[in-house]
Amino acid sequence: MIVVMKTGTPEHEIHEVIKRIEEQGLIAHPIFGAERTVVGVVGSSFRQDLADMLSSVEAVESVIPVSKKYKLASREFHPVSTTFKVGDVVIGGEEVVVMAGPCSVENEEQIVTTARAVKASGARILRGGAFKPRTSPYQFRGMGEDGLKLLATARAETGLPVITEVLTPADVELVAQYADILQIGARNMQNFLLLEECGRSNKPVLLKRGISATIEEWLLAAEYILNAGNKEVMLCERGIRGYDTMTRNIFDLSAVPLVKKLSHLPVIADPSHATGKWYLVEPMAMASIACGADGLIIEVHPNPDHALSDGPQSLTLENFAKLMPKVEKIAVATERHVLPRLSQAR
Amino acid sequence: MIVVMKTGTPEHEIHEVIKRIEEQGLIAHPIFGAERTVVGVVGSSFRQDLADMLSSVEAVESVIPVSKKYKLASREFHPVSTTFKVGDVVIGGEEVVVMAGPCSVENEEQIVTTARAVKASGARILRGGAFKPRTSPYQFRGMGEDGLKLLATARAETGLPVITEVLTPADVELVAQYADILQIGARNMQNFLLLEECGRSNKPVLLKRGISATIEEWLLAAEYILNAGNKEVMLCERGIRGYDTMTRNIFDLSAVPLVKKLSHLPVIADPSHATGKWYLVEPMAMASIACGADGLIIEVHPNPDHALSDGPQSLTLENFAKLMPKVEKIAVATERHVLPRLSQAR
Amino acid sequence: MIVVMKTGTPEHEIHEVIKRIEEQGLIAHPIFGAERTVVGVVGSSFRQDLADMLSSVEAVESVIPVSKKYKLASREFHPVSTTFKVGDVVIGGEEVVVMAGPCSVENEEQIVTTARAVKASGARILRGGAFKPRTSPYQFRGMGEDGLKLLATARAETGLPVITEVLTPADVELVAQYADILQIGARNMQNFLLLEECGRSNKPVLLKRGISATIEEWLLAAEYILNAGNKEVMLCERGIRGYDTMTRNIFDLSAVPLVKKLSHLPVIADPSHATGKWYLVEPMAMASIACGADGLIIEVHPNPDHALSDGPQSLTLENFAKLMPKVEKIAVATERHVLPRLSQAR
Amino acid sequence: MIVVMKTGTPEHEIHEVIKRIEEQGLIAHPIFGAERTVVGVVGSSFRQDLADMLSSVEAVESVIPVSKKYKLASREFHPVSTTFKVGDVVIGGEEVVVMAGPCSVENEEQIVTTARAVKASGARILRGGAFKPRTSPYQFRGMGEDGLKLLATARAETGLPVITEVLTPADVELVAQYADILQIGARNMQNFLLLEECGRSNKPVLLKRGISATIEEWLLAAEYILNAGNKEVMLCERGIRGYDTMTRNIFDLSAVPLVKKLSHLPVIADPSHATGKWYLVEPMAMASIACGADGLIIEVHPNPDHALSDGPQSLTLENFAKLMPKVEKIAVATERHVLPRLSQAR
Repeated sequence: MIVVMKTGTPEHEIHEVIKRIEEQGLIAHPIFGAERTVVGVVGSSFRQDLADMLSSVEAVESVIPVSKKYKLASREFHPVSTTFKVGDVVIGGEEVVVMAGPCSVENEEQIVTTARAVKASGARILRGGAFKPRTSPYQFRGMGEDGLKLLATARAETGLPVITEVLTPADVELVAQYADILQIGARNMQNFLLLEECGRSNKPVLLKRGISATIEEWLLAAEYILNAGNKEVMLCERGIRGYDTMTRNIFDLSAVPLVKKLSHLPVIADPSHATGKWYLVEPMAMASIACGADGLIIEVHPNPDHALSDGPQSLTLENFAKLMPKVEKIAVATERHVLPRLSQAR
Repeated sequence: MIVVMKTGTPEHEIHEVIKRIEEQGLIAHPIFGAERTVVGVVGSSFRQDLADMLSSVEAVESVIPVSKKYKLASREFHPVSTTFKVGDVVIGGEEVVVMAGPCSVENEEQIVTTARAVKASGARILRGGAFKPRTSPYQFRGMGEDGLKLLATARAETGLPVITEVLTPADVELVAQYADILQIGARNMQNFLLLEECGRSNKPVLLKRGISATIEEWLLAAEYILNAGNKEVMLCERGIRGYDTMTRNIFDLSAVPLVKKLSHLPVIADPSHATGKWYLVEPMAMASIACGADGLIIEVHPNPDHALSDGPQSLTLENFAKLMPKVEKIAVATERHVLPRLSQAR
Repeated sequence: MIVVMKTGTPEHEIHEVIKRIEEQGLIAHPIFGAERTVVGVVGSSFRQDLADMLSSVEAVESVIPVSKKYKLASREFHPVSTTFKVGDVVIGGEEVVVMAGPCSVENEEQIVTTARAVKASGARILRGGAFKPRTSPYQFRGMGEDGLKLLATARAETGLPVITEVLTPADVELVAQYADILQIGARNMQNFLLLEECGRSNKPVLLKRGISATIEEWLLAAEYILNAGNKEVMLCERGIRGYDTMTRNIFDLSAVPLVKKLSHLPVIADPSHATGKWYLVEPMAMASIACGADGLIIEVHPNPDHALSDGPQSLTLENFAKLMPKVEKIAVATERHVLPRLSQAR
Repeated sequence: MIVVMKTGTPEHEIHEVIKRIEEQGLIAHPIFGAERTVVGVVGSSFRQDLADMLSSVEAVESVIPVSKKYKLASREFHPVSTTFKVGDVVIGGEEVVVMAGPCSVENEEQIVTTARAVKASGARILRGGAFKPRTSPYQFRGMGEDGLKLLATARAETGLPVITEVLTPADVELVAQYADILQIGARNMQNFLLLEECGRSNKPVLLKRGISATIEEWLLAAEYILNAGNKEVMLCERGIRGYDTMTRNIFDLSAVPLVKKLSHLPVIADPSHATGKWYLVEPMAMASIACGADGLIIEVHPNPDHALSDGPQSLTLENFAKLMPKVEKIAVATERHVLPRLSQAR
């Protein structure tokens, strides 16, 4: 890191700072400029604690990190892209994976019908919420374990692996009994105990970007999971908070190629939550694949105008069926493919 | 709520919507305008589920809530300001309360020294973190239960009640054994299970505003706690995420008078986290009281440049001592007072 | 519009508001709900002045617009997509147009070399800045009229029409003498006198979205140009301000399909300014076309590491040449094409 | 500035960068760290052009400025606070100045009545808009020169100097004939030609912060005016764009003490535009003075519910009269005063 001293700092205060650095077993390289002095610190990775302490010294103007704060998630240290399997599905590989299903599991007919339909259209993973984080205590909060059981039923019917959200560390074990992928939602991206508990599970994790998380914070959240021992992490861009309420969020699609450059982890795009409007899902799903996303997660409901949650952003079964060949065309245009659809027979 | 139909919607589709509303036992009031039709819905409080369903109807352009989404937190329904006691300290009353202490409890000497000093300067509640949420897994994360015990020691030494953060539902019982006030941090504002668990505890709760929470979301988070049975909730404005990295956050001080108008709950301001710079704490503490905050929570450390966390935003014991009479002067200028300092003798 | 009254407003105050509405020759439709009364206003388009006046009445909680504030820019009133020609180039039609060139015109060799190269790769319009808005007074601010002359030289050499920025109303006539398209930059999106002056010119206008403009504000800015008589307006999404400084801006790509739904005007995407990093330009150019942009505007420089401005986001001639077939593939995947490249002979 | 090289950059590429720096007559100080090399650049103030060029070099990860980009506006180079006089009123001195008046001048009675009333309550400068920037072309845009004449009438009646907005360089001379202070609005903060034209005028300038301007951008905008020769510049915090539409803007009050630390220029606060709600003006005006603002600018209208613009955020004459003693109390609590009210006799 680089310690920037205030203009006009007397020499003895600069030496104070150099001493503080050397006491930590590190090497200080001062550069005496015309306007001010900066001190380079050599000898370790970035240390936030030291940066904070030095920032608190009166004569220090600022401390600038130079190394990356994350290591396990960084492509600099792990140049090869991570891939892993969920059932037969390879995540992060040559082929693009599509996950689809309703926001919430509502009943057996709804989830099984949806699962069959999205499978027929080419989805390879079934999404569905059993534990739902809701802004208001008066909203439908999911079916809980009964919902997990219905997801298992839908999996048995279709062969599609299941992704579902887990809200709290105490539920990880329960959810992992039913789910093939644990989803950590945007509001929980910095629920560090949940990250670690998922890091100790043996199920792959989809980590949504926080509602206003920087890319560094997102990768540091992934670092928590990786550091706890679970290497099967995928990142999901789902829109960030913006000042224009015309869409639910701003879909920060540049984050897809940027994160793939900074990290070796697979990146999934969620155009449903990112836009909040079903008629924007198709164009933004296509854009997501065009800029390199490894997959999509899309909300689909047989009757959006009767859905218990997220109807306005859900595709009908028909609209999802129309979307899939368009996504495939974009994948081909980028020299990839969508994973081939499962045969219907089981 | 008001259902806005798309321009040129044929009459039978408007009647479809009216039928949907009436099926719910509600009354629909269509207004046929020159450009478009809107349908007023009368007969219940705002229902998010119905709003979502109607928004999903093809012919509907948008659904606009009219009623407030929160009730228990709303001043409209509870015009009298809430006050409650923590030990001898009244929160939300005529007098302003100051909470102070280090970001993290580091050792007995640090916490007891700080507690004595802030008490001598006029703080009436001691803050200190034992469970710390940290952006990186490589940062100091607090002393855990040992930290709670040291807080209890400092309380025994000084008589100051203690506020400390709880990170996860499973810890609420433990933390409540030691703490006088449970703090829910910004990253956990929408950790709904934690809100409910705190709502079932018998300790007052300080609910920090989420990193990019709207005021409505913040009040709905309070609604979770109130709805679970705990009426002793105070709200804490601690800065929101902005686009300028020159300060840690943007201190949204207008939220103080606005929330006090919308809600009957006490509002505390946290200029330390809001600004991230110790030299901005004094002016912004003064501004907080000037616009009507019921109290302050301020980070104080005997040696900020050796603090294990948040040094750059911590006041020294001396600077805190200088702050308190300035805060008192502002309180007096707004026809309030700071709670009188405790006598040192115990 | 809908006037929402405060809870518990006495009837006579509601009648005051109804009277105010009727005095304007409009019809008031009160709906008396359980919690509060709302008054629908029928008889004109949205009137901001009346909305402001009614909002200022003590008993009024809020006033909610229902009609769109823009008419000329709205697809609701002009369902057919606008197309127009710049030389031989059709903007807003079936085929996608690519504009390319350096941030700033620096000298004859630079602009002519770049113009030839981008033409050879398939660009159909040449961009280049002569009047540059710069954050600091100490930065290079463009060559002024000499730069315009060099753009004209490059057009004469290549046949490519020229787009360049105009900064102030007094320069519109001068710039229009040289340019084929007038560009209004992000910082000037609400320079209303400039909008009107461009609206009175006979040259097409490219209107960049303001640094933190809402979509409504952007369309209202276009409305100024249209209202002044110029119907040849295209909108350009170039990224909006965000809280993460890792990219220059957030590329709000969802705005492309959303604006095309709300408005009949063509939409161009600018991945260079939106991302600020040359290595993100290719994926985001592809994503832009995938979600329906009618064209791209891209910064290209023969030697980005010697450019006088915007080097970090400029493609080399080689990288631009590699980009074009990829963009074409995406266009084909969406059932469009990129406009065929001009023959080199002139 | 500091040039951060990518990890694993071969030595000869580092030497390339060093050569580029030395070619500019500057000195390069490489520091070879364990993970990466950084190169300190010594010998000039920050040079954006060189920073951009070096950032464009393949092997360079980033370039970090160390010096401030502004000089004339910086307290580092001009430690003494700037003060100047407008008529008898000292701006930036010990005493706090209050400017007040309507958003728009509407007619003689309105402006003269308001001027007399705000003078009687203690305002020392009259505000009023004659040229109004409006989001929609269909809104009232001010009376133009007729409005300026009415401001001059109101000044003649009351002796209050006048502040009014100028929208475009071509109007500076005209507006300066009538106004005592030129106001540059938020939308024009980066209208660089306007900044320079005001910089060439001999009237003091109030520069509002841009709608989403960083503090550095704001100070660089002031730098344009100062660099053009006008040293009488005051900065005005008027709220920045946020994600919560409950208030018109976010009032970034921490910017007041922060800018006063970074710059020697006076800082004025505008709680009317910052909040957009008249009932928040009083508490936020008090907070502004509490954190060190040198003055206030406040919208006041005899009949806000009949105002042609900004009614919802305007104080009535009575509410302004009630505000002034409260502001005075806060000023006293911070060891300042509000400038004494003018005697009514003329």
